[in-house]
Amino acid sequence: MSNKDSLQSPKGTRDFYPNSMRVQRHIFDVWRRSCEAFGFQEFEGPTFEHLELFTKKSGDEIVSQLYNFEDKGGRQLALRPELTPTLARLVNQLGSSAKFPLRWFAIPRLFRYERAQRGRLREFYQLNMDIVGTESLWAEAELMAAIVHMLVSFGLKENDFSIRVSSRRMLAEVLTGLGLDDLQRNKVYGALDKKAKVAPEVFDNMLREAGLQESSQQELSRFFNCQNFSELKQLASSTFFGAAFESSVAELEDLFNKVSALNCKQYVSLDLSIVRGLAYYTGVVFEVYDLGENMRAIAGGGRYDKLLENLGGKPVSGVGFGMGDVVLQDLLESKNCSGERKPSADFFIADLVNNTEAVAALAQRLRQKGHQVLFSLDGGKLKKQLSFADESGAKKLLFMGSDRAG
Amino acid sequence: MSNKDSLQSPKGTRDFYPNSMRVQRHIFDVWRRSCEAFGFQEFEGPTFEHLELFTKKSGDEIVSQLYNFEDKGGRQLALRPELTPTLARLVNQLGSSAKFPLRWFAIPRLFRYERAQRGRLREFYQLNMDIVGTESLWAEAELMAAIVHMLVSFGLKENDFSIRVSSRRMLAEVLTGLGLDDLQRNKVYGALDKKAKVAPEVFDNMLREAGLQESSQQELSRFFNCQNFSELKQLASSTFFGAAFESSVAELEDLFNKVSALNCKQYVSLDLSIVRGLAYYTGVVFEVYDLGENMRAIAGGGRYDKLLENLGGKPVSGVGFGMGDVVLQDLLESKNCSGERKPSADFFIADLVNNTEAVAALAQRLRQKGHQVLFSLDGGKLKKQLSFADESGAKKLLFMGSDRAG
Repeated sequence: MSNKDSLQSPKGTRDFYPNSMRVQRHIFDVWRRSCEAFGFQEFEGPTFEHLELFTKKSGDEIVSQLYNFEDKGGRQLALRPELTPTLARLVNQLGSSAKFPLRWFAIPRLFRYERAQRGRLREFYQLNMDIVGTESLWAEAELMAAIVHMLVSFGLKENDFSIRVSSRRMLAEVLTGLGLDDLQRNKVYGALDKKAKVAPEVFDNMLREAGLQESSQQELSRFFNCQNFSELKQLASSTFFGAAFESSVAELEDLFNKVSALNCKQYVSLDLSIVRGLAYYTGVVFEVYDLGENMRAIAGGGRYDKLLENLGGKPVSGVGFGMGDVVLQDLLESKNCSGERKPSADFFIADLVNNTEAVAALAQRLRQKGHQVLFSLDGGKLKKQLSFADESGAKKLLFMGSDRAG
Repeated sequence: MSNKDSLQSPKGTRDFYPNSMRVQRHIFDVWRRSCEAFGFQEFEGPTFEHLELFTKKSGDEIVSQLYNFEDKGGRQLALRPELTPTLARLVNQLGSSAKFPLRWFAIPRLFRYERAQRGRLREFYQLNMDIVGTESLWAEAELMAAIVHMLVSFGLKENDFSIRVSSRRMLAEVLTGLGLDDLQRNKVYGALDKKAKVAPEVFDNMLREAGLQESSQQELSRFFNCQNFSELKQLASSTFFGAAFESSVAELEDLFNKVSALNCKQYVSLDLSIVRGLAYYTGVVFEVYDLGENMRAIAGGGRYDKLLENLGGKPVSGVGFGMGDVVLQDLLESKNCSGERKPSADFFIADLVNNTEAVAALAQRLRQKGHQVLFSLDGGKLKKQLSFADESGAKKLLFMGSDRAG
């Protein structure tokens, strides 16, 4: 490696100069305030975990996307690519002292070794909100209301974003009705998650390999063509999907009623194309979309019934989502909602009489009263001091003239 | 590795459950407010850097204390053990657009592979404050005043901590007067830094190896025995250390006058035993001590003249310090100054009439007015709801009775 390389930030990472850091702080502050408005408590875990914690949840193939390494004590470790395994570890460690339901949030720094591209960095921050230990659909509804609370707090409007909702359980009932078992259903989820990225013939072929014949694919299309609950209910009454499907439709409709009670109906819509790639979702799934020209996903999540159990804990149901900082910041900047980049202080004290001691003493008195105060450390000409005051963004300029005799 | 190990946090790291996280947030909040009171702007860098950035500053021997690894693209990387090289990189990247002096702070998460023990974790947070681009001693004075501001804001008193100050320049003048060159002086700094940990004979031997004969060692003792500025000045006038030594004493005395102007004199004292191990300090050095029975260092720093230049930049002088979160938190807890561990919310709404929709709607109206509001997601018996309200630390309890008819 050349000397020049070591003098740059590693590929896929960011340097936060103060003007960028203020935007970052603004995002964190709004996130935190909204989480707290909904009674969520913050937690945090280590930056790296035992590699096994991640492979146990996601299989060995995840290793290719990790920053993993062996430490000097021979431990296999990995920089965390997501916080959910850590959350599961912490909840499981609590054992019977856990007071469910927990409302927890965190703003971890996460790491993924992947091709660096716009909106996809190797190091990023992600808000995580989870409600663990209840099967109530109010948990899903509260998370969606919290998402609306934070995005509106940033200054976004109803036509800037949309929460798109579907149900893994509903889709599972459809596929079960079509005769598919667990393994085949997971193959279909994988195919559906890739649908937008592959040619139609390839997609059809993936479905066939998962066990869906031509006629079944047509049945599946009838499901995906449903635009609203009345069409879903009509399908339920007219086909062989049965009572379990009907009840899963009713469950999802109930969620929309709860979202209405929380006064967020206008931000939430049914979208059966939402599947989520991860295998561990078992109930409601949702994604938040930027409605601008980019139409990118800002956040995504859903309900998981087996996750904690798979990581060695009790069978506890939870629901959560993650919202990364990179795509969100792009969206906020495009809407002029990313906060103030420039610095600000309350006072700058300019020194007219070359008496830095007196300036410093006044600065200190103002600071002790809670103000943010700057002065020139080098004294210098008034013009230079005023230029420095301007740089600092000070709201008020004080001039120190002759010192009051003691 | 057994399954059980992967279900614990890696050695030397911490899990922050909400009650610990609140203490952590309190520490960060006070740090941040004090930095901003002094007009410091926050920045941040990547969690890992090119390994070379650290070896270039500290030599290859630092690698044994690092979490270093090769990424999947063949890059040699390391989790940062300190932020100063990143600071130097960022300032150097600015080139001629840097508006000196910069007042920058950061609260990085840092990583050191070392024996885990009380107060010495492998992963920790550290406040960094630096003033870069001025030779004015007001920079040192401002940093010390900021330290006092934050420790007093935590609730610590004058007899809880002490900022101990010395000067590398002064010590260098003494050693130069005793005939030592650059390399020999660095050996003496290393020996002095280890003095408290080795036997007196070992220490004497280290000094001899650095080039200090018996008579010179006695001269050096005369310097270290000085308790105050008048003794230092007496030494300056009576020995062969010369005018450069005298001027370095005057410089340090000037710093104390500046600290007085900032109304912090009572917290700062002369302590010639402060040397700081790192080679890159060239001027004033200081450490902050817990005055309780532990007498541990809470923070340390000093002036560096060559650091940025050594990392490929222009010759720019700076001064900075680091304050870790672990020892500080121990001290704050021993003084009952670590903030509130328990959760709090503004309202808990208990449901007397099994009408969660109405409860949710009220919660949402209160949240939109800026309040923190909780309710039971599962409804349930009043006793269970009240127990949950108690857990949440809600300041006010609302009861939802019969819904007002629309």
